[in-house]
Amino acid sequence: MEFLVRTENRLPPHTAADERDRLRAAERARADELREAGILRRLWRVPGRGGTIGLYEAADATELHDALASLPMFPWMEIIVEPLATHPQERGGGPGRAAVVQSRTAAPS
Amino acid sequence: MEFLVRTENRLPPHTAADERDRLRAAERARADELREAGILRRLWRVPGRGGTIGLYEAADATELHDALASLPMFPWMEIIVEPLATHPQERGGGPGRAAVVQSRTAAPS
Amino acid sequence: MEFLVRTENRLPPHTAADERDRLRAAERARADELREAGILRRLWRVPGRGGTIGLYEAADATELHDALASLPMFPWMEIIVEPLATHPQERGGGPGRAAVVQSRTAAPS
Amino acid sequence: MEFLVRTENRLPPHTAADERDRLRAAERARADELREAGILRRLWRVPGRGGTIGLYEAADATELHDALASLPMFPWMEIIVEPLATHPQERGGGPGRAAVVQSRTAAPS
Amino acid sequence: MEFLVRTENRLPPHTAADERDRLRAAERARADELREAGILRRLWRVPGRGGTIGLYEAADATELHDALASLPMFPWMEIIVEPLATHPQERGGGPGRAAVVQSRTAAPS
Amino acid sequence: MEFLVRTENRLPPHTAADERDRLRAAERARADELREAGILRRLWRVPGRGGTIGLYEAADATELHDALASLPMFPWMEIIVEPLATHPQERGGGPGRAAVVQSRTAAPS
Amino acid sequence: MEFLVRTENRLPPHTAADERDRLRAAERARADELREAGILRRLWRVPGRGGTIGLYEAADATELHDALASLPMFPWMEIIVEPLATHPQERGGGPGRAAVVQSRTAAPS
Amino acid sequence: MEFLVRTENRLPPHTAADERDRLRAAERARADELREAGILRRLWRVPGRGGTIGLYEAADATELHDALASLPMFPWMEIIVEPLATHPQERGGGPGRAAVVQSRTAAPS
Amino acid sequence: MEFLVRTENRLPPHTAADERDRLRAAERARADELREAGILRRLWRVPGRGGTIGLYEAADATELHDALASLPMFPWMEIIVEPLATHPQERGGGPGRAAVVQSRTAAPS
Amino acid sequence: MEFLVRTENRLPPHTAADERDRLRAAERARADELREAGILRRLWRVPGRGGTIGLYEAADATELHDALASLPMFPWMEIIVEPLATHPQERGGGPGRAAVVQSRTAAPS
Repeated sequence: MEFLVRTENRLPPHTAADERDRLRAAERARADELREAGILRRLWRVPGRGGTIGLYEAADATELHDALASLPMFPWMEIIVEPLATHPQERGGGPGRAAVVQSRTAAPS
Repeated sequence: MEFLVRTENRLPPHTAADERDRLRAAERARADELREAGILRRLWRVPGRGGTIGLYEAADATELHDALASLPMFPWMEIIVEPLATHPQERGGGPGRAAVVQSRTAAPS
Repeated sequence: MEFLVRTENRLPPHTAADERDRLRAAERARADELREAGILRRLWRVPGRGGTIGLYEAADATELHDALASLPMFPWMEIIVEPLATHPQERGGGPGRAAVVQSRTAAPS
Repeated sequence: MEFLVRTENRLPPHTAADERDRLRAAERARADELREAGILRRLWRVPGRGGTIGLYEAADATELHDALASLPMFPWMEIIVEPLATHPQERGGGPGRAAVVQSRTAAPS
Repeated sequence: MEFLVRTENRLPPHTAADERDRLRAAERARADELREAGILRRLWRVPGRGGTIGLYEAADATELHDALASLPMFPWMEIIVEPLATHPQERGGGPGRAAVVQSRTAAPS
Repeated sequence: MEFLVRTENRLPPHTAADERDRLRAAERARADELREAGILRRLWRVPGRGGTIGLYEAADATELHDALASLPMFPWMEIIVEPLATHPQERGGGPGRAAVVQSRTAAPS
Repeated sequence: MEFLVRTENRLPPHTAADERDRLRAAERARADELREAGILRRLWRVPGRGGTIGLYEAADATELHDALASLPMFPWMEIIVEPLATHPQERGGGPGRAAVVQSRTAAPS
Repeated sequence: MEFLVRTENRLPPHTAADERDRLRAAERARADELREAGILRRLWRVPGRGGTIGLYEAADATELHDALASLPMFPWMEIIVEPLATHPQERGGGPGRAAVVQSRTAAPS
Repeated sequence: MEFLVRTENRLPPHTAADERDRLRAAERARADELREAGILRRLWRVPGRGGTIGLYEAADATELHDALASLPMFPWMEIIVEPLATHPQERGGGPGRAAVVQSRTAAPS
Repeated sequence: MEFLVRTENRLPPHTAADERDRLRAAERARADELREAGILRRLWRVPGRGGTIGLYEAADATELHDALASLPMFPWMEIIVEPLATHPQERGGGPGRAAVVQSRTAAPS
């Protein structure tokens, strides 16, 4: 099941630069693990903000929560989760209805 | 550039069934054209609502507006558009960072 | 997976009484089917309103949406769905942690 | 009478780990007492958040308040209480209308 | 148990005057019955609006809902109910803490 | 004139216990004086919160403000005031319309 | 006592022009009476809207409500009333603190 | 041009009393200068709050901003400005339409 | 003085096409007059909506209101006006600080 | 593509004056670079607030985000970005439709 996940990062601006760098690197490493596990499917930056919008896929809300809570930035994140249902237009399997979302700007190498 | 597009459908409940069917079929046909043009990338149903959340890709907000305004249901839709920026974690091109969003539930035939 | 479902009923006040009665009876019949299918687990009346708060259980948001959309009142309902995750305190299986929610006021006959 | 209780946990992220652990253990112990007293009926985790949604049963709002205020985390919790009325569909006692809410994922041992 | 009940009246402005008068008279008659039953304790007009703020006392939310739904204006009313708990300062029974709320402007004849 | 007064208490959770006790005792003492002056008519606890809902009676908003600002907790309170008008149903003086609001749970000794 | 009164005019756009003119003339006539009675002190147009912001002075919320409800447009107006207290800086009577609010653009003839 | 200006004062409650007194005196002195300059026309206390509602008159939003930013409390104030247009009923200059707003409670000495 | 003006168009979707066309042409003609008068400086489409965001320049809020109210669509428009002050960075007159906002996409012919 | 960018400045009021001055000078220097790059097109002060409303032009949301994140005040800014589409009235190139937005108050030297 897919979820739309919106985060705001409340890490205080006065956090030391090295602590911030450490957290950001750990965040990226854990996010990559969630990508490899097929849980984190896409991640966008909300322009002008530290926050993100992400597309996640998990068995249920419990698995999703565990994934989000495993992120090193989790204690400072304000998160809103929305459940997503398959749209009737994407339920079928005919051509023209394939659900491949391949970003043109972020092509895989 | 990608956009997150949220719609609510305000078509009155007392709309005649055949008018509703006609609109829905025309809507799907136009949506398929937008898919083929690479503008409509994914579409989800918000559970419990007539509304949708969609992932669109367009040159700019003007092209996006023209695409949305071309949908037959547009006069009855309440739409909110959010611009999406590429997240730093997806800017690179290394393995594990590929931005393929292929829904497991809606695999292409 | 469990969901909290909040509904408001926008059926116009000037709806004819027999149409209203017919809809209400059909609504109850369909709701009973959802109960028997294990999808509708509890339903509360929000005091002072025509709306409800319900506890649903479904495989995912798509199954939940189909269940809600099958209700005869659906075209007039404004619905908000919240996903629920299992709380750590209820994950274990020890005594005192049993998740039986048996209403004292609505005991089964 | 039943109540829907929504909590957010405002314990600062920089709280020492052992203080946090101590509070969490005390919270669980007190919550178990409220379960045994039949006041706390179900507790869910809101995915992505430290907050919860709970189903409580108490004689009135005063008894409910005393129960909530007895939780060790109470000083840091932002709480919203909604009163719940019995839905007409659950007032009767016939089969198919039993109000047993037994979570399939959290079966008692 | 006491409840604070806020109502807005959505009766359309173009409602015929005699229908409006009939409803208002019936509303007052039923409200008086609720007063005599000890359920409706005080009723205020929100200045500038058709709405009201009321203080109700009922066994629980279900009894309250039945009382509100019995008002002739109910189908046109938008209602919000808040549960009230006894304040510690009013729990005791000493002098100076008596909870008599007797409006100076609306003294009984 | 009557006012509905809603307060939230923003006293930080980490306030020392004796300072908190001192403030609470002073708050109660001052509230009792306002009761005796006929300004504070009723006070309820909002269940699950440190806040209150109060019914006040004062000559005007200035007198009310002075009363609220005299409370020892005032610097930490977030307060919203709503003016209340007499409802037409309570303007008359006939039997059954007496505005005595005597809480059954908080009877005077 | 002074009140800040915010109105929105919900008269439907398709109202016949002569009915609209009749209502507007009657509204102005009644407003002038309220000015002469010292109840309506100032009235502003919210730019871009049919609504107004007004400064009223009345004995209490009940007198204010009666004044507002006497306006011919009242059934179509959405009104929000805020109570105003005298500011400490305007309580004294020294020079420079005079509360004359005389609009430079709307000088009396 | 007139503006309605709403302020909330976010000066922390734990500010030292003499610093608070110093700020308040300086605030009053500067406000008196703005009164003499014809910029600050009226100032009300929002009952129960540290905030104010003010009526200002300035050439434009830039002059207004400079006036507000010159207040000693400005760094701690949360301010919302609304532009006000002359109401058609006050545009004319006939008797009964004079825009003198002279508070009865705050008469000049 | 400049204003940011946000509009939503509430013209009912079922409005006849020729009436809609007539209104739109008249709207454009009047908007062009406001452009020539230097009042309407820029106009944007909010993507996905019938609404607009506009940059206006007028002597004050009254002149702005008259300009907006002169638009043929005005009766169906929901409008919010925000006053704009000159930013300190644009107050000076040095090079690089020129306030020419010339859209690259809408160059004059 | 153009964007409307709204900022609030959350720099704490107790920030040392020289740190504040240093940040403000750096902010202005970087903003001037964005002006020269054609990204920052106009900047307004929201009257009464530390915040701004800006008109930006960038290739897409990613370029815009990078520009905003390069501002020295960025860590303390709360930012909301709205995408802007070209309005049909400004798409053509005829006279009277030129999109020159040249502030009369801030003319280039």
